[in-house]
Amino acid sequence: MKLKRFSSVLLGLSLGASLATSAMAEQSLQDVMKARGLTEKDVLSAAKIYTPTGGRDEYLAFSSGGQSGHVIVYGIPSMRILKYIGVFTPEPWQGYGFDDESKAVLRQGGNDDMEIQWGDTHHPAFSETEGEYNGKYLFINDKANPRIAVIDLHDFETKQIVGNPFFKSTHGGAFVTPNTEYVMDAAQYAAPISNDFVPLSEFNDKYRGGLTYWKFDMKKGKIQPEKSFTFEMPPYSQDLSDAGKFVSMGWGFTNSFCSERYVGGVEKGRPPFEAGCSQKDTDFLHVTNWQKAAELVNSGKIGSKVNGSTLISIDEAVANDLMFLVPEPKSPHGVDVSPDGSHIIVSGKLDSHTWVYGWDKIKNAIDNKKFEGTDDYGIPIIAMKDALKTQVQVGLGPLHTQYDSKECVVYTSIYVDSMVTKWNYCTGKVLDQLHIHYNIGHLMSMEGDSASPDGKYLVALNKLAIDRFNPVGPLHPQNHQLIDISGDKMKLVADMPIPLGEPHYVAAIKADKLKPVVRYKSGWDSRADKRSPYKTRAGREKVVRKDGVVHVYGTVIRSHITPEIIEVEEGETVSIHLTNLERAQDETHGFAIYDENVQLSIEPGKTVSTTFVAEKPGVYPYYCTEFCSALHLEMQGYLLVKPKGYVAKEGKIQEGQAYTKADYNKQVKTNTDTQAVINSVVGFITSHNYKDFPEVVALVEDATDQLGFADGAKKKSEAFAADGDYQNATLWAGQHWQYQVKTADMGLRAKTFLEEHGAVKVESK
Amino acid sequence: MKLKRFSSVLLGLSLGASLATSAMAEQSLQDVMKARGLTEKDVLSAAKIYTPTGGRDEYLAFSSGGQSGHVIVYGIPSMRILKYIGVFTPEPWQGYGFDDESKAVLRQGGNDDMEIQWGDTHHPAFSETEGEYNGKYLFINDKANPRIAVIDLHDFETKQIVGNPFFKSTHGGAFVTPNTEYVMDAAQYAAPISNDFVPLSEFNDKYRGGLTYWKFDMKKGKIQPEKSFTFEMPPYSQDLSDAGKFVSMGWGFTNSFCSERYVGGVEKGRPPFEAGCSQKDTDFLHVTNWQKAAELVNSGKIGSKVNGSTLISIDEAVANDLMFLVPEPKSPHGVDVSPDGSHIIVSGKLDSHTWVYGWDKIKNAIDNKKFEGTDDYGIPIIAMKDALKTQVQVGLGPLHTQYDSKECVVYTSIYVDSMVTKWNYCTGKVLDQLHIHYNIGHLMSMEGDSASPDGKYLVALNKLAIDRFNPVGPLHPQNHQLIDISGDKMKLVADMPIPLGEPHYVAAIKADKLKPVVRYKSGWDSRADKRSPYKTRAGREKVVRKDGVVHVYGTVIRSHITPEIIEVEEGETVSIHLTNLERAQDETHGFAIYDENVQLSIEPGKTVSTTFVAEKPGVYPYYCTEFCSALHLEMQGYLLVKPKGYVAKEGKIQEGQAYTKADYNKQVKTNTDTQAVINSVVGFITSHNYKDFPEVVALVEDATDQLGFADGAKKKSEAFAADGDYQNATLWAGQHWQYQVKTADMGLRAKTFLEEHGAVKVESK
Repeated sequence: MKLKRFSSVLLGLSLGASLATSAMAEQSLQDVMKARGLTEKDVLSAAKIYTPTGGRDEYLAFSSGGQSGHVIVYGIPSMRILKYIGVFTPEPWQGYGFDDESKAVLRQGGNDDMEIQWGDTHHPAFSETEGEYNGKYLFINDKANPRIAVIDLHDFETKQIVGNPFFKSTHGGAFVTPNTEYVMDAAQYAAPISNDFVPLSEFNDKYRGGLTYWKFDMKKGKIQPEKSFTFEMPPYSQDLSDAGKFVSMGWGFTNSFCSERYVGGVEKGRPPFEAGCSQKDTDFLHVTNWQKAAELVNSGKIGSKVNGSTLISIDEAVANDLMFLVPEPKSPHGVDVSPDGSHIIVSGKLDSHTWVYGWDKIKNAIDNKKFEGTDDYGIPIIAMKDALKTQVQVGLGPLHTQYDSKECVVYTSIYVDSMVTKWNYCTGKVLDQLHIHYNIGHLMSMEGDSASPDGKYLVALNKLAIDRFNPVGPLHPQNHQLIDISGDKMKLVADMPIPLGEPHYVAAIKADKLKPVVRYKSGWDSRADKRSPYKTRAGREKVVRKDGVVHVYGTVIRSHITPEIIEVEEGETVSIHLTNLERAQDETHGFAIYDENVQLSIEPGKTVSTTFVAEKPGVYPYYCTEFCSALHLEMQGYLLVKPKGYVAKEGKIQEGQAYTKADYNKQVKTNTDTQAVINSVVGFITSHNYKDFPEVVALVEDATDQLGFADGAKKKSEAFAADGDYQNATLWAGQHWQYQVKTADMGLRAKTFLEEHGAVKVESK
Repeated sequence: MKLKRFSSVLLGLSLGASLATSAMAEQSLQDVMKARGLTEKDVLSAAKIYTPTGGRDEYLAFSSGGQSGHVIVYGIPSMRILKYIGVFTPEPWQGYGFDDESKAVLRQGGNDDMEIQWGDTHHPAFSETEGEYNGKYLFINDKANPRIAVIDLHDFETKQIVGNPFFKSTHGGAFVTPNTEYVMDAAQYAAPISNDFVPLSEFNDKYRGGLTYWKFDMKKGKIQPEKSFTFEMPPYSQDLSDAGKFVSMGWGFTNSFCSERYVGGVEKGRPPFEAGCSQKDTDFLHVTNWQKAAELVNSGKIGSKVNGSTLISIDEAVANDLMFLVPEPKSPHGVDVSPDGSHIIVSGKLDSHTWVYGWDKIKNAIDNKKFEGTDDYGIPIIAMKDALKTQVQVGLGPLHTQYDSKECVVYTSIYVDSMVTKWNYCTGKVLDQLHIHYNIGHLMSMEGDSASPDGKYLVALNKLAIDRFNPVGPLHPQNHQLIDISGDKMKLVADMPIPLGEPHYVAAIKADKLKPVVRYKSGWDSRADKRSPYKTRAGREKVVRKDGVVHVYGTVIRSHITPEIIEVEEGETVSIHLTNLERAQDETHGFAIYDENVQLSIEPGKTVSTTFVAEKPGVYPYYCTEFCSALHLEMQGYLLVKPKGYVAKEGKIQEGQAYTKADYNKQVKTNTDTQAVINSVVGFITSHNYKDFPEVVALVEDATDQLGFADGAKKKSEAFAADGDYQNATLWAGQHWQYQVKTADMGLRAKTFLEEHGAVKVESK
């Protein structure tokens, strides 16, 4: 019976395929355009982004999630979101902040008690080599609880979090130096360097800003706090930064707002911060020499250990020519160094001009000690005229500038006017302007922060997109608008709602620079990136009680968890370590236990752990949370927590169903028939050039694994049958069939893939 | 100077607009197709989904997020994800599980200690009236920690969570009866009804399944646990359900797997659950009479209070003809009642047929007490032949069936074969088959679970989409594929990756049935849906110490938080209540405090609270986390936690910057110039038919509000100037300008909107 069903299904498939290619009357493009009210321009835009099934995007964009604490990954030009990476906020789908291994990462940022359950991600930055994105790591900051995270792009997981030892907020990170020597992270709201209470009356004297240069080891993929250093800075609300490159190599640029050092107090009738922080016409661009600072710190000539980390005082910075100030347009946001390092463009949200600085001019002033004076903290100020090349009127509220591949061409986001201005920073000419819906914050060109921007596309990060999409309640999505910048004029192509989080900044990398793994080495602790001490092989599952902890060394594979029953006593600490035995890249399993706050994501090869106290006696079902196979729901088990001192009564397991020799024979017949179908699928595959398709080779390998398991189950069933135990013989024969179904599943996917990818018949060898 | 900048910007805009319409050589569709390798079929598909900026989707789909604990909302046909709604998992962007009000919702599900920080959402269901989606509420279950949540579609927020008093898991929810009288939620993994430990040797006797009918009050929008009841059921792993309608009104259908009652034990050498739970050829469809049960429970004739809730024992159900069993294909998943209530289709993942039952046949058997026997628990079993109309061979692994608008036409997802089969349940004929990438779970047609499905589109929820998108590491996104079912043949149109979560089921509603609010009434507690006791008006902000708690009644508005300084003593409990004073629908503000795990989302009108203990003395900056305005970064403040017994020293605030009469005069000049620009924008707006555009009316109202604030600041600055206090006069004049900038921002958006929407000049009145 099963064979007939199976075979007809295969026939059905071929029938379906032939029908699909018959000459049915197709709907015309005109019909669809008319029905949906599309213009020709719309269809052109549609064609620019539409990515057929299985197609790939040219760029991957990594966006901050703002107060969601995640990083958002999407494809360009398809504008489809591919992944939210958990960074500062626990995320159960990924098991992030749920398994012991990732909890350890979250604790690294000084979050010992796991009390802080979120982060405010702002500015992602790729690791670079000679100013080019190298596709290895992504850095992102938490503004609220000042931390920097390192995401490994080989598996898109957060591997390290470091907490800032001096600051109480860090908005101005992450930005990297050209070889990722350092990751820049600037303070925002001034606060005492210590954790002490200091009254606001001592703001000017005791509150401080600053800029941390985090040392990064590219080989280890780790920030090295002990080799990092921080510039003490005046309480000026430092903001975004950028690193110099080529001619400006070794230098960093950090802007600021509220250099008025206003301390608010609207509740006492004083004008609010917003008034006091935007009164002066200019704020200060901070210019720092990190290369020289590093040398002096490393040779022990400057810097003191404060809070266990190296701090360069303002006096030391001034005495060693490490820090300078330049007036900049008030309340600036972006400070953007040109790809060749020669120009620095600053955009001030309360101005209508972008200001273009020449590094040659700034360097000249520094070299010749040509200053117009110092600020109240003794830092030399370079006069505006000695630094500025030009001011270009771009619109009201310029915020951030990105570079094109075309020489001197840039794009600036204009907040108040809600538009993008394309202009030339060499000639000072405005080239084009495009309306945005509404209120653009940052914007991004492809590889726009690298030494060789690709241009091509621009993405506008719009904040207040109230009317672009179907309404979804008072909390609106934001809107990333894709703009085609390949021609002379900017063309708005598509809108993408952001369904979760509030992105601030995004960076896009050529997709082919990324080579993510699709599965882990067997028994891998992905957070520590090494073999897990809890790695468990098939058949080696065990329960070990050690140092008061019940360690369960278990495995998961389609479609069972081993062990299926875990018995502990009330009050015991339980530590469950699960290894995913699968090699098929899509066979991620989950693991959840009722009422224990346990949710693991176990990708193929991974080993993860969960540790909890079994506080209350009772029955706790557990199961696989990922829809992994046809028998996914049956991938289950029970954690049994016995009361203290419980003594088991006599009592065998009551079998709910009894099986006979007839049941066994019926199952064996089914299995024989099923095997014939599998053989025919295998025949199809091996008679084609399947080895030319790596995806199919992987499926075939997995199917072969499953068949291997099937064989084991078959042998068991035959042994029980030989002993006349038809209960176990039937059940193991059933398990044999389960493995066959999984084999068939893989086989059919492989067959479909070959059919759809033009595989050809080959001579049998 | 400011005026000039402003004006030229306005000119720049017109210039840009005229340039954009000039007859530039356009890229042709053919060029784009060639460059991107698109076929004509691709362009046709692109046109079917492409939604130009500002366009609306015809349907909104609400998808479970699986173990992410969220609900995912996306548009059809654009396949753009619009929102993740926090349901069982804290989500900081929304402030969900962070503000006191939403913490109270999360605690409702029996999660007193907030220990459970996630949920496993499975099956969303819309509230219904006469079998039609009414657009008011959405229900969704948590399988892991058995709970049901109620999401209010008027603001897309989770309003209620109820915990199941009997079960240890609930996979088979949520499904609603035709007038949302009840929400069905079936158990999955059998467990003792009590919370006691019971050994597995007593599985058959003491482990139980069940089905809860949660009473719903549509007017109050609340589930009423005290009016709900639960059927005790055998330990058969109950699974999905569906409610009867029209001819089958009053009845419910619930399928099951593992009716073998197998208890696993692979770790002891026993065959795993997957073998023991799939050995029998059939499982049991449970047929329950909820209407009669409700009457009997309400009149006190059946049911006992167990765990404070009403339980109908198996014996009571049998004695009162409330529960029957029908054999069904083994390991079934979907049980789907036809729109007219006459047929029930069950799909068994280990079969290759769907089984079509006739309600007339089942009812006839029940009425005539025609049973083939009873199960071990005494429940009558209706013979397969007395219930079944036909079995249709649809492919290997049928999982779930959805109805079309066309009579008798249905679509079944085929898991193992990875395809969708279109067939006719009246004729039993297969009409079409379409490959899916890969391994489809559920599928959904538009309003497919209602009494009148729309058909049109089908979405396939694919589980193992490894090769459809750019790789993003070992944890792959899932894939929702959009299929055009308007014609005879199914046409695959688009792939949508799911970037976060693992959807199981999705339901789509006609978008025009939803009328979400875009802002709250002033001072609104959105979770309790009533005026907040902490509502605070502008100017009425205050700090009140009461019962050992420091209550801060504050407000937020572009671009300041009142109060800006909060002073408390070490160890005090602080409760901050913030009201968003904005009326502009997009002016959501956030509120974060350094190191206190505080992150609020405060949509316009909302009042939310956060309560924490200020444990350590120190300086804690706080700020607005939403990019709300040009002065967003300046929307800041300080929580100052003084050491116990701290005595303030003498000391005024040191002003970082001093202002003179000249500064004041300069600012006044700027303001006067700016006002002239605003007047010109206002002139443009009022000279057009702006009242015909509700969006613009809202912007104008908001701009008028801002101008009102501006006037207040202006008066203050003039009063200080009159007193010769140029420090405060200048700062308040600056604040006046800030309000002007916000007015201009709104005005320019209104102007842009009018220009883009063909507003026409009107006679001035």
